[in-house]
Parts: sequence; structure tokens; C-alpha cells
Amino acid sequence: MKPHFLDSKLTRSLYSDLAGSGEHLSSLSDETFLKNLLVVEAALAVAAAPEHAAMAKATIDSYQLDVEELSRRAAEGGNPLIPLVTDLKAINPAGIHIGATSQDIIDSALMLCMKEGVGEVVDKLKKLARDLAELTAEHKATPIMGRTLGQIATPTTFGALTGGWLVAVDNAARALEALEFPVSYGGASGNMTAVHPRGFEIQAKLAEELGLFDPQWVWHSDRTPITAIASALATAAGVVRKIAGDVVFYSQTEVGELREKSPGGSSAMPHKANPAAAIACDGYARRAPGLLATLFDALDCRLQRGTGSWHAEWATLRELAAVTHSAVSRAATSIDGITVNVDVMASRVNGPTGHAEDLAERALEIYGKGRS
Amino acid sequence: MKPHFLDSKLTRSLYSDLAGSGEHLSSLSDETFLKNLLVVEAALAVAAAPEHAAMAKATIDSYQLDVEELSRRAAEGGNPLIPLVTDLKAINPAGIHIGATSQDIIDSALMLCMKEGVGEVVDKLKKLARDLAELTAEHKATPIMGRTLGQIATPTTFGALTGGWLVAVDNAARALEALEFPVSYGGASGNMTAVHPRGFEIQAKLAEELGLFDPQWVWHSDRTPITAIASALATAAGVVRKIAGDVVFYSQTEVGELREKSPGGSSAMPHKANPAAAIACDGYARRAPGLLATLFDALDCRLQRGTGSWHAEWATLRELAAVTHSAVSRAATSIDGITVNVDVMASRVNGPTGHAEDLAERALEIYGKGRS
Amino acid sequence: MKPHFLDSKLTRSLYSDLAGSGEHLSSLSDETFLKNLLVVEAALAVAAAPEHAAMAKATIDSYQLDVEELSRRAAEGGNPLIPLVTDLKAINPAGIHIGATSQDIIDSALMLCMKEGVGEVVDKLKKLARDLAELTAEHKATPIMGRTLGQIATPTTFGALTGGWLVAVDNAARALEALEFPVSYGGASGNMTAVHPRGFEIQAKLAEELGLFDPQWVWHSDRTPITAIASALATAAGVVRKIAGDVVFYSQTEVGELREKSPGGSSAMPHKANPAAAIACDGYARRAPGLLATLFDALDCRLQRGTGSWHAEWATLRELAAVTHSAVSRAATSIDGITVNVDVMASRVNGPTGHAEDLAERALEIYGKGRS
Amino acid sequence: MKPHFLDSKLTRSLYSDLAGSGEHLSSLSDETFLKNLLVVEAALAVAAAPEHAAMAKATIDSYQLDVEELSRRAAEGGNPLIPLVTDLKAINPAGIHIGATSQDIIDSALMLCMKEGVGEVVDKLKKLARDLAELTAEHKATPIMGRTLGQIATPTTFGALTGGWLVAVDNAARALEALEFPVSYGGASGNMTAVHPRGFEIQAKLAEELGLFDPQWVWHSDRTPITAIASALATAAGVVRKIAGDVVFYSQTEVGELREKSPGGSSAMPHKANPAAAIACDGYARRAPGLLATLFDALDCRLQRGTGSWHAEWATLRELAAVTHSAVSRAATSIDGITVNVDVMASRVNGPTGHAEDLAERALEIYGKGRS
Repeated sequence: MKPHFLDSKLTRSLYSDLAGSGEHLSSLSDETFLKNLLVVEAALAVAAAPEHAAMAKATIDSYQLDVEELSRRAAEGGNPLIPLVTDLKAINPAGIHIGATSQDIIDSALMLCMKEGVGEVVDKLKKLARDLAELTAEHKATPIMGRTLGQIATPTTFGALTGGWLVAVDNAARALEALEFPVSYGGASGNMTAVHPRGFEIQAKLAEELGLFDPQWVWHSDRTPITAIASALATAAGVVRKIAGDVVFYSQTEVGELREKSPGGSSAMPHKANPAAAIACDGYARRAPGLLATLFDALDCRLQRGTGSWHAEWATLRELAAVTHSAVSRAATSIDGITVNVDVMASRVNGPTGHAEDLAERALEIYGKGRS
Repeated sequence: MKPHFLDSKLTRSLYSDLAGSGEHLSSLSDETFLKNLLVVEAALAVAAAPEHAAMAKATIDSYQLDVEELSRRAAEGGNPLIPLVTDLKAINPAGIHIGATSQDIIDSALMLCMKEGVGEVVDKLKKLARDLAELTAEHKATPIMGRTLGQIATPTTFGALTGGWLVAVDNAARALEALEFPVSYGGASGNMTAVHPRGFEIQAKLAEELGLFDPQWVWHSDRTPITAIASALATAAGVVRKIAGDVVFYSQTEVGELREKSPGGSSAMPHKANPAAAIACDGYARRAPGLLATLFDALDCRLQRGTGSWHAEWATLRELAAVTHSAVSRAATSIDGITVNVDVMASRVNGPTGHAEDLAERALEIYGKGRS
Repeated sequence: MKPHFLDSKLTRSLYSDLAGSGEHLSSLSDETFLKNLLVVEAALAVAAAPEHAAMAKATIDSYQLDVEELSRRAAEGGNPLIPLVTDLKAINPAGIHIGATSQDIIDSALMLCMKEGVGEVVDKLKKLARDLAELTAEHKATPIMGRTLGQIATPTTFGALTGGWLVAVDNAARALEALEFPVSYGGASGNMTAVHPRGFEIQAKLAEELGLFDPQWVWHSDRTPITAIASALATAAGVVRKIAGDVVFYSQTEVGELREKSPGGSSAMPHKANPAAAIACDGYARRAPGLLATLFDALDCRLQRGTGSWHAEWATLRELAAVTHSAVSRAATSIDGITVNVDVMASRVNGPTGHAEDLAERALEIYGKGRS
Repeated sequence: MKPHFLDSKLTRSLYSDLAGSGEHLSSLSDETFLKNLLVVEAALAVAAAPEHAAMAKATIDSYQLDVEELSRRAAEGGNPLIPLVTDLKAINPAGIHIGATSQDIIDSALMLCMKEGVGEVVDKLKKLARDLAELTAEHKATPIMGRTLGQIATPTTFGALTGGWLVAVDNAARALEALEFPVSYGGASGNMTAVHPRGFEIQAKLAEELGLFDPQWVWHSDRTPITAIASALATAAGVVRKIAGDVVFYSQTEVGELREKSPGGSSAMPHKANPAAAIACDGYARRAPGLLATLFDALDCRLQRGTGSWHAEWATLRELAAVTHSAVSRAATSIDGITVNVDVMASRVNGPTGHAEDLAERALEIYGKGRS
């Protein structure tokens, strides 16, 4: 068995990366999700039962995770944590799962996946922003015709246009950086009964151990932390989809104002120069709104635990992060080293570019401020 | 013509209020949207051509708005602003539409609708929050069984549960209060060419005139201000849907722990006591995720003006606000004066309520902090 | 009160027709929906209580429908039928609402709206198909370059392309024509108890009276008849959206191969020739997938009556029909009399058009067969 | 490396089966999808170049498929077929990819995945229908209270209710059985130019070789065959979701009228008896509407090849089939051997069950007819 190899397989197939994303997020794979269940149980032992922590950690370290088998046994109780805890307690119950319920461990493990996955999306967005800032600076005065509703409109500059892309990408990155990834520790009915009065204290320690946010509250049946992450991801996907759509336009044979560094070929038409990265970006990004709708529907969380709505979040949220990462990764590839056909742009310009250069500069200013 | 009569009709039929919302939002109607086009043109005259402002305002005041006719003529250019400006200029062109393009006026008018509509949603959420705070204080120690996956779990208190509802409602209200409603003034290609170098100065004045946010940027082709509003609305809808779903559960004949003040009857079964307000709340709220998906799909805004994506926003965003308002309004009616059958709740409790009362108090603390 | 005036207002504002659809569907308005409740009650009297039919019809004819007031009172029971039946019975109970429950009348009334509304969508699709058939015949041999992923590919003919549009439009029209619009008559718990053993017999008569389909079954809690209609509508919307997207491409300034008969102008750029009808078509059509998702989510119908899910259908299904009608109407306007710039198309062609002409002829054959 | 082990991993992780589906569909995995590309190329050699078929098959059989590597190289051209054909032609070009374009092979391979995957969904639905027919026959006269809007309504029989489930499941299975899975063979611009005039003849042979439907037409840019499959799958998911929701209700502690054969436990509350299979069913099924919306949005297929819209279909359609299969599989597990607490049901019944028994019999009749 090759964990890394398997990881990438799982990750890629989670969002079926057959248009090619260039990179994969093992942080979002089923295997990482399951491994995080063990990470959370180990941290919980430290936070809730320090006296047994060493023993609990030894128990967890000795556990052989079998994704195949655990998934099969997940059917028994409707989640993978129940058989996992049963196994751990069979080895040695000391310090295992103190005061927790399945949802605490699963929600916290999902947040570990998301914190890492969102971080990788942010890195890609920043790489894209840097390239867009360079394009904007270089082409702040490069004349191009503005186009509305598919028609030539009035003159502007290419830097003013990429400046618009830059500000949107920068905002999307900052919104993702501002996200909180809360730990969960509510216990059976979400009121910390089992460990009262130390519940919030243990939750704070657990958050510290895991590097997650301490909500100082219980969010078992309030799923807005999930939809907040989902909205920020879908926004990032939409922002790069707009860029990709424009690159596809400017790359059209009849327009010819942009050309990707490594345009795609065709199995039937060797002469073609498809903006393959931009097209793949759109292919991933347009999957975001439907996944987002599923997560907002899951706010309909009944009583003290989502009944189906909770279970729908596990794959949907990770998939939304995965398609967003692939979309951003493809957008970054599309822009990196893109050829700007300045003469073709200029050949269509029929007047002064007015205020456009100032706009490009303002975009760089906003971006710089955001970063300082 | 009966403006008020028409208003309410337009508003209600915008989201087909046949399950009854108790109240309607004229701020979201087609007629208000069209009237706001005139409001924005008048404010623009003051901001961009003060010397002609009086004349322009007189021209606009003298204009007879015919919703029927304007909608028909909207077909010509694909938006209602073009025939409207044509009419105004025919009366007197002085100071009309200076440096603007259709999108500036339409986006700004839509934001005027949304600012008022969202404000009314916030008022309803605050009313609901106040009632939930009272319930939480009164029942912080009222024993009830927690329930997960439809099964009796462990004891908690009703105030701990309503405290969870309260915190979510309070957060949703604050997120809506924090929204920005940006004015738009980019001109033909979104680069303020026509009025350079005074563009941003005019935009700031226009924002001040209209009481909208001055973005100090052009957002023609970056639709994230729309999706930010949409996400906050869909979150509010989801938060009250969770409460409504729980009320329906507690109102079940077999559960009988809650009863709405004015339960609904039946055309065939006079003995029934349906939690009609909670059910209507769910009926409105579950329309939000699909509408949200449409708005996130509209981030796919091509070149310097959304081609179809922009047009899809006009009704969808107002409808999302309308169904959210109805959902919140129905949730407030459901909770207002709801009967809490304390004895029925207690009859099922099989143990101590542990930490629950403290949770209810923490909820009131969080709510109080948010409000102070 | 001006019924016609009100009607068109209600209809248009149902889907906010501010991009202009050219035509409106009063069949989908709230007022028609409410009027249909009376139509169904009258037909039910004939089917279930012929001896009281005359009296019941007189009672119904004498009833003054007040949309405003009925909508307000709908809040009491969560639907508009309860107060309406209360009013009718107060006038004269003889033969009113025999063996029925609210859902029977409301579902049947909704189906009357849909049967008429879908019929109008089909008429528009057939008009569009006729124009596409003419274009296909005229241009079956007109050379144009095929384009994939935005790039010039290999030669084909314009008639082969419009033939593809034609077959899809024709299929969409036939799928809508094949739809069944079932009547509903299940009674209180959907088992016809109140009128046993004459239930199915009365349902058959009711279907005959109303011109609806007799399902010979009770579909209260099986909402697949709703999703079947919704899928066929969303398919039609998607099919014309593809045509509109292509028209926008061919109308681009840089492409110039098509031009709408009456292109739209601009409030800021008089020189523009926007494919306004195609753009509006896309604006309506792209609202369909989100509305469709809401209706499929409503298959989640609990127990013997949808609790919120049912209520969400009333406006969403009519709105889906309304945006589909506007999208098809706009597509028909876009194609009607469109200018085909044969020389511009030819100027890019670099080889023989091969099999394309045969494809155009096959499309006409498939269309002819479908119609004969 | 363990191919089988890998297979199941890929399949499961495609829809993250961590709530446990009991069974997995390797037919929908990325690896099977890629293997099918080779299957289609081999069949194409037989259909288009019989004289080279033996050589082509030998070439394909000798090819070592590396999912990892192929996915990485897919990024170059935006799809995995381009590098695969490049590899095959490098070995021996004779009879490889004759007259085809990437889309032909990928669409046909996807249809092979769907034909098998849908067949497995149908098998599960039939198993569920058989169990529901038994329940309906056994309990056609078992009294139970009908419930609407969460309230006790009027008496009916459990068999009448399961009869309703049965008819819906039976209809969903038949709709899936009636689906067509078309082969694709349009060539570069979808007009079969390269192989004219033998295009349709080769397509017919290719369909026969692969056991797919011969559309006698080219559907490159008409994606309604995809949305037809998607609608039928989402309908099946919605139908079983309704059953699951009802099972969750009847299994409530306060209701106690049904109990799954193997209810789930809890990691914190050993006493619980969660309807784990029904809950997991809902968790999978509620992911269907959002995925369906993405596929209807993909009808927006530009020019002669979907630009992003096509790429979004590959994973979304397979995932929709996968979640539908898991939802149906879980529903079948929930119903199989479910305990019907006849006495508890009877204890709430307050009157005669009227027509209900006849309804149960009619359901069995409809089911029988459908199957004969």
C-alpha cells in the first residue's frame, strides 16, 4: 500500500479531476478525513483526560486504519466514528472519547480538512493575484476596446480590466483567510452535560490542541459555520470563472488578443490552440453553485442533530473546496505567462482610453493595501 | 390606478404569497424598482450636473411612469432604463444620465430596493430574537429531552434549545446589518471615461445623495456585492427554517410539547391544529437555496457587462429577499405567544439537565453583547 | 378593479419581466390560480353532487374574489382554499367541497394553470421550430466554420447547425406536449375515505369536467407529476438558452455572422447593435436550473401531505413555466427575421463542408416526421 | 498496487460513502471511466476500420493504463483522451481513432458507465419494490392514522401508505429502464465530415459493438440525453427520500410504529435505536437536486462543443448516479425486515379505515401490471 499514492487517487477522484487540475488536495480525501478522526480523538484525550493522554495516544497510534473496512462498517450506525471508537475502546478505553459524541469528532475532523484545504485555495489565489498585479502594472496603459453584451463598446486599457480581476481575486482570498474553523465539543445532546461544568474549558483546550477556532458556544444544530465556508469558496470559484470566461473570449480565433502559454491541442485538429486551462477552470467552477445550494439546504438541521442534512455535508463541503481549488489552480495556470497580443488589441481601438490607466493604478493600490 | 393596491399586488405576486406572510414588501416590487430608476437619475443630476439639477428634477417629476408600457418597451433594448431615458431626454435632456450607462442606474436602483428590503428583514429578525430571548429566559431551566436523529437522547432544557435558536437568529440579523449596498457609476465600459477625471468624485456624491455605500471602485463585472447580500439572506432563511422544522416536530400530535397561538384549521378536518405559521415559514425558506445558486452562477459575468447573467439578477435577488422576509415573518408569528407545554416536556425527562441552564444564560449573554 | 390590467401586472411581476418578454402569461398569475380554485370547486359539485350542482355553481358565481383579502386570510391556515371554502359554505353549503381536502383543490387548480401555461410554451416552441426549419432549408449548403472551445475547427454549413437547434427544439416541444396534468381527489388522508366507494369514479368525472388527466390513483404525497412537468420545462429553457448563446457569439462585433432583426441600442452608446432578444432569453433561461432544484427537493414530501415542500411548489412551478415561456418567446424573436451574413461566414471557410448538407436534410426529416 | 482495492476506493470516494451505502459501484469510478475510453476506441476500430481492427485491439490490449499519469497529462489538453490517443498512436496508429474527436470517445465512455450504473440502481429499486409489495399485501388492512402537516388526520391502513411508496418506486424504476444511452460519433465539428458518407453507418456499428443506443443523429451540442438520465436519477433519489423521511418519523421514540431491523447505535448513547439506513438514504438523496441543477445548467453548450459545461458533466453525472444508488441501497436496507408495530399503530386509530384497503390492492395491481 502506498499512502501518498492512494491519497492522491482518493483526492482526485473525490472531484474527478479528469480535465486536469495540475495539483491535488490530499487534505480533502476520505482517508485524510478518517485519519483526522484519530487526530481529534488524540487531542481530546489531552484536553479532557490528561492523566490518560499518553495511554490514549498509544492506543490510537497502534490502531491500523482500514478505510475500506471502516467505510463498510460505517453503514451500521450511519457514520464511521462509531466503529472506530468501538475499536479503540476494545484496545484500551482509558481516555478515549471523553464527554464527546460522534458529531463532535466528525465536525472537528471535517474542520481540520477544511482549514488545510482552504489554506491551499488561498495560496493559489495569492499566486494568481501576484501574476494579475504584474499584468496590471505592465499593461495599465495598453489600449483595448471595452465590450458589453458581446459588442465593441468604448476604449479602455487591458490593465484596467485585469485590475478588476485582481481586486476580485484579492477580496476572495481575504474572505477565505478571515474564515473561522470551529472545533466542536457539545456531547450527546449538545449541552456538554457529560463533562459539566468543564465543557467550555475542555473545548478551548481541544481547539488549542488542534489549531482550530474556539467558538465558546455549541454549533451542533446551527450549521452557519459550514455555509460561511461554503459561500466564501463558491465566491472564489465564481471570481476565477469570470476570468476564465474572459480568457476564452479573448482567445477566440476571431478575437486573438490573448493566448495561453501552453494552449491545448485536439485529438482531431492539430492546428487548434484551445485555452485549455481557462476551459477546465470553468468546468470546475460551474459545479460550485449546485454544491452550495445543497449546503444551504442543510441548514435545515432538525432538533439536536441533522438527520440526513448533516450527513450530506461531509462530502459536499470537501467537494466544493476541491472544485474551487482546481478552478483557481487552472485559472492561475491560464494567466501564468499568458501572451498579450498588444497590436491586435490596439488595431481595434478607435479613441482615447480616458480614465482607464488611473483605474489600473487604483486596483494595484487596493491590492497593495490589502496585502500590507 | 390605485398605487397602494397595485404595490401590494406586485410585491406579493413577486413571491406568490399564497401561504400567507402576514406582511408584504412593496420595497421589492417591480413598480418600486422602476420608480427607483427615476430616483437614481434625479440624484445623478445633482451629483454630476448641479447646474441642471433643478431642471432635471422637474423633468423627472413630470414623468408619468407606466409600468405596463415600460415593461413592454424594455424588450427593445433588453432593459427598462433605455426607453425611460429616451422619454426623459425627449422632455428635456439637460442634466439627464450624465456619464452613466444603463447598468449604473439599474444596479443602483436595485440596491435601493435591497437596502430597504433587507432592513425590513432585519426588523423581523430582531422581533423574533426578542421573543426568543424571552422564551430562553423564562424556560432556561424547563426540562425537556434532547433528541438526535429522531430519537430521545439525554435531558436538556427548553431554554438551552431556544438559546441556540436565538444566537443563530441574532448572528443572521447582524450579518444582514453589516451588508454594504454599493452605488454604481462606471459609465459605458466601466472606466468612467465619459466624466474623467471626476468619476469617483461624482460616484461619492451619488452615494451620499442616495444613502448608498461608496465602493470607491467600479463593480460592473464583479458581482460579489450581489452574492454577499444573497448569502446573508439565504443564511437568515435557513436559520428560521431550522426553528420552523423544530416547531413542527414539537407540535406533532404524538409529541405535543409546543402549540402555536393560532394553529391552522383544515378544510376537511376541523379538529386539526396545524402549526401553520411554521409550515409556511419552511415553504418560503426552502426556496432560498435554489435562488442562491442562480445568483452565484451569475458571477459568471462576461467582459464588461453580464450577458444574461446580469439580467437574471434583477428578479432573483428581490425574490430571495421576499421569500426570506416571508419566512422570517412567519417564524416570528409562529414563536409569538407560542404555548410551551411544560408538563408534557417534563413527563419524558429521565434525568438531570446538567449544563443546560448555563447554556441558556450564555445564549442571553451573547445576544445581549451583540445588541449593546 | 381592472381585471385585465391586474392580470398582466400579476403575471409579469411573477417573474419580473423587466428585460421584456414581449408577451405575458395570465394563465400563471396568482389571480388565475385563485380563480381556478373556484373553477375546480364548481366542477367538483357536478362530479360529486350533481343534485346540488346548480345551487353550488350559483353560489360560486355569486362569490366576489378578493385576491388581496384572500391572500391575507391565507395566513390563518397556511393556504388560500380554507378561507375560500369557509366563505362559500357561509353563502350556501350545498354541494360545496364534497369529499375533498385543500390539497385536492389547490393541486387541481395548479394543474389547470400549468396545462394552459405549458400549452403557450409549446406554441412558442413550434413557432421557433418553423422559423428554424426555414433557416435550415435555406442555408443547408451555406458554408460556415465549425467552432469548438472557442476556436475555429473544421467547415460545416449553417443549416447543419440550425438543424441541430431545430431537432432539440422539436424534441422539447414534443416532451411538453406529452405531459399529463393530473387532477387530484384523495380527500383528508389521501384515501378517498369520505366518499368511498365512489372516489375513483368521482375523480374520473372531475378530470373530465376540467379537461385534466385522470391518474386513477392518488398522488398527494408522490410529487413526481410536478417534477416531470418541471424537467420538461427546464429542458426547453436549456435548449433555447443554447441557441441564444450561439446567437450572441455569431453577433459579436469580431464575428459578425448573424444580426438580429431589431438589435438593441444602448443608453450610452447609440452605435451598438446588441442581440437584445438572445440576451434576454439567456437571462430568463438561466433561472430555470435553480427553480428545478427547489422542485426536486420538494419530492421530500412527508407523510400524507407536504409540510412546507408542498407550499414551495405553488409559486416555483408557475415561475419556472413563466421564465421558460419568456426565454422561448425571446428566442423566437431573436431568430425571427435574423440576418445571416453569408459572405462573412464564407470568408472564413477553408475547405469542403463534407457531410454537413446531409445533416441539415436529416434534421428537416426528423422534424417533419415529428410533426406529421 | 492493488487494482481491485484501488477500484473500490475510487468508486467510494467519488461520492464519499462515509455514511455507508453497504455497496459500491465500480462502474462509476474514474478508473472504469478511463478504461471505457479504451473499450470505445477498440469498438471504433471494428466499426470504422475492420481491416485494422485486430492490430488496433492488440495495440489497445498492450496499453498500460496509469490513472495517475493520465489524469496529470489530461491538464495539457483539458481532457484525458488526447494523451491516451497520443500514446496509442505512438505504439501503432493503424485503425486508431478513425474519424472521431475526443468528445465522441468520452461521451460514449460516459454512457457505458451510466448504462451499467443505472442498471444497478434499477436492480436496487426492484428489490425495494418487491419488499414494499410484500409489506403492502401483508398490511393492506392494518389500521394506522393518516397524518398531514404533522398532525393526526383520519384513519387509513399501513398497506395503503406503503402502496403509495410502491407505485412511486415502481414508476421510478421503469423510467430508468426506459432510458436510452446514446453512442457518439460526430467527428471534429459534429458533422461526420472526416468519414462522410459512412458516418451514420459507422455510428450504428459502434452502437452495436458497445451495446449502446444508436441515435441516428449527432448530439455533441444537444445535451438533453444527459439531462434525461439526470432527471430520472434525481426522481428515483427523491422517491426513496420520501420513504426514508417517513421511516424516520414512524421510528421516532414518541411514535414507535416502525423499527429498522438493525437500528444504529450511538458513540455516546448506547440505548438509542436510530433508523440509520433511512437517515443515510436521506443524506445521499438530498445531494441530488444540486447536482441536477449543475447538469441542467450544462445544457448551455456553446457552439460545437461545451466550453466548461461539457467538462462539468463528467463527474457530476456519475456522482448523481452514485448518490442515487447509495440512497436506494440504504432505503432497501431500511425496509428489508422492518418491524411493523401493529399494536402501536392500532392504539391511535379512532375510526374505520374506509377505502384504504382497496387502495393497497390497487397499488399491487399497478405494480403487477408494470412488471408483467
